[in-house]
Amino acid sequence: MQSLNLDLGERSYSIHIGTDLLTRADLLLPLLRGKQILIVSNTTVAPLYLEPLTQSLITARPELIIHTCILPDGEAYKDMAHLQEIWDNLLEAGFNRNATLIALGGGVIGDMTGFAAASYQRGVDFIQIPTTLLSQVDSSVGGKTGVNHPLGKNMLGAFWQPRVVLADTRTLQTLPPRELSAGMAEVIKYGLLGNLAFLAWLEQQMPGLIAGDQQLLSQAIDRSCQCKADIVAEDERESGKRALLNLGHTFGHAIETEMGYGEWLHGEAVAVGMWLAADLSRRMGWLSDADVTRVASILQAAGLPTHPPKTMTTDSFLKHMAVDKKNLDGQLRLILLRQLGQAELFDFTDLPLLRQCLNDAITNPHGF
Amino acid sequence: MQSLNLDLGERSYSIHIGTDLLTRADLLLPLLRGKQILIVSNTTVAPLYLEPLTQSLITARPELIIHTCILPDGEAYKDMAHLQEIWDNLLEAGFNRNATLIALGGGVIGDMTGFAAASYQRGVDFIQIPTTLLSQVDSSVGGKTGVNHPLGKNMLGAFWQPRVVLADTRTLQTLPPRELSAGMAEVIKYGLLGNLAFLAWLEQQMPGLIAGDQQLLSQAIDRSCQCKADIVAEDERESGKRALLNLGHTFGHAIETEMGYGEWLHGEAVAVGMWLAADLSRRMGWLSDADVTRVASILQAAGLPTHPPKTMTTDSFLKHMAVDKKNLDGQLRLILLRQLGQAELFDFTDLPLLRQCLNDAITNPHGF
Repeated sequence: MQSLNLDLGERSYSIHIGTDLLTRADLLLPLLRGKQILIVSNTTVAPLYLEPLTQSLITARPELIIHTCILPDGEAYKDMAHLQEIWDNLLEAGFNRNATLIALGGGVIGDMTGFAAASYQRGVDFIQIPTTLLSQVDSSVGGKTGVNHPLGKNMLGAFWQPRVVLADTRTLQTLPPRELSAGMAEVIKYGLLGNLAFLAWLEQQMPGLIAGDQQLLSQAIDRSCQCKADIVAEDERESGKRALLNLGHTFGHAIETEMGYGEWLHGEAVAVGMWLAADLSRRMGWLSDADVTRVASILQAAGLPTHPPKTMTTDSFLKHMAVDKKNLDGQLRLILLRQLGQAELFDFTDLPLLRQCLNDAITNPHGF
Repeated sequence: MQSLNLDLGERSYSIHIGTDLLTRADLLLPLLRGKQILIVSNTTVAPLYLEPLTQSLITARPELIIHTCILPDGEAYKDMAHLQEIWDNLLEAGFNRNATLIALGGGVIGDMTGFAAASYQRGVDFIQIPTTLLSQVDSSVGGKTGVNHPLGKNMLGAFWQPRVVLADTRTLQTLPPRELSAGMAEVIKYGLLGNLAFLAWLEQQMPGLIAGDQQLLSQAIDRSCQCKADIVAEDERESGKRALLNLGHTFGHAIETEMGYGEWLHGEAVAVGMWLAADLSRRMGWLSDADVTRVASILQAAGLPTHPPKTMTTDSFLKHMAVDKKNLDGQLRLILLRQLGQAELFDFTDLPLLRQCLNDAITNPHGF
């Protein structure tokens, strides 16, 4: 097991990475304020991992009161209606301020459980047990929680830090290959935005990673979490540097919103977004043709798409990008690559260039 | 104008109290991060005060983009459905993270606007302009925000501090007498829980206060806010001392929940709750008969009820008190009076005594 610490003063917490952490009740029990636990999971993950988690807790401390809330699986259900289902569960169980929520699942479950915890009785504890690569390297760390609104992704939420994160790499063995690839998009992101050496390592190890090598995955998760933890510790509420973690996300959110949440996986949309960010950076004169080809190659090696859905138009991209949270007072801000391994938040004003970039990506997906 | 400061580190803010503050754009403008403002008000307050507020802002800074969201008036509408209406407004307007929400109204508007701000894009600024005595002395100060759930009051919410509070005493001139009395319940609370001298001053000045004397009201609001600010500065998230501010509220919430929100005003329910807390304290041997009579007298002088609705039973009280946020792991915690002017959070275990107290209050409202 590897352990990192996310240093946020009194909100600091540990991130543990390794095999079979799911049943390590000893990592969870010391953090509980009370006896009441609500485990939130979904219809895919619960049949696999709910029983071992519950059993290990109950065996270690029989007086625990454990309720469960099983939601349907998918980004399409990351909405207020299902958030309310979690709250209803807590209230019907009569749970108080010392209750602890445990998120057992991917990013959707983690984000919703975190927001439910943030707002139940003005804030109770929660624990992240991410079971997808995407959530292990990204959403479970850093305290961003929320749900989608018909007019935008993650528009409602809170910054609310978990008490601990357990990333059990064993759970990745049951993850569909498409989702492993989607998670790899965020891993690649850490290389692109701030660590060229890590990018080179990923280029070398991608076949083993995609084949599910536990040891390699553990290393990739550890380095990704360390990168994220460093940035979050510096800028918890995203007033500056943390925005860099959204590399590719402004374009990606537009794809997810337009296609309807769930049709494209988040990581797939982000992969396309990162490619678009790279290509736009090339048009700014920052990246070379070879750099952009390198970005496309590693994404493709990870089994990820690099071009937008055929049904999307330039206008639909621009429409959705206008409500992105990173746009301040109507000014479009994009995260671009000054060079590979160095991202930068940029006040973007050259609309014709952006249109051209999107248009070319949509109409001529294989040339630039 | 009197000004206090609530000291919460980087979340510190000023509370200004005085006449005609509503049109003092100079107190608000320096605090705005961006140009986008959503004023949230209700159908009672908006016709009176929305126009002067909007005009003063637009006159001082014509480039402001001001939207309004007018909700129906009353505790019955403090729910998720109406919170969503605020969020929808923000998203339809395309407002970003630099937007500012302004709550113009009583506690319901303040609590909902605060929660909407806390969760919109994971947190934007908001400003409190409370227009009722209750909200001026209580809910606008301290950052508690939230909405009700069918299973309990304020069960969903956040701690989210405003950037500034403007308590304009002129707005109390249009407040119905019943609501002025309800607000006075919280003013009396500050005397009962921690300031015997203030209680004595209130006993003396109650006729003038209830008649709406601006000068006296201003003094009462100032002292109440100071008392609240001191306690909140010491314990922002209610892990200890802040719970004392809930004197009478555990009983009061039970009344509001049972009767349906809106039938009884919050302050009226709290008045009864304070009387019950006093009577239970007497039964504990802490207060004298004369003390309890004194509590009843000042509440009655303020035009407040002191006994529960006839339709409530002891069991309905106990049922609702079990989900109160102050109860930890099924242990009933009540705020009782060690003596007049000194409240204490108490782990209450003597259920028969509590039943007797409630039963007597319900069946024999005029004796104890």
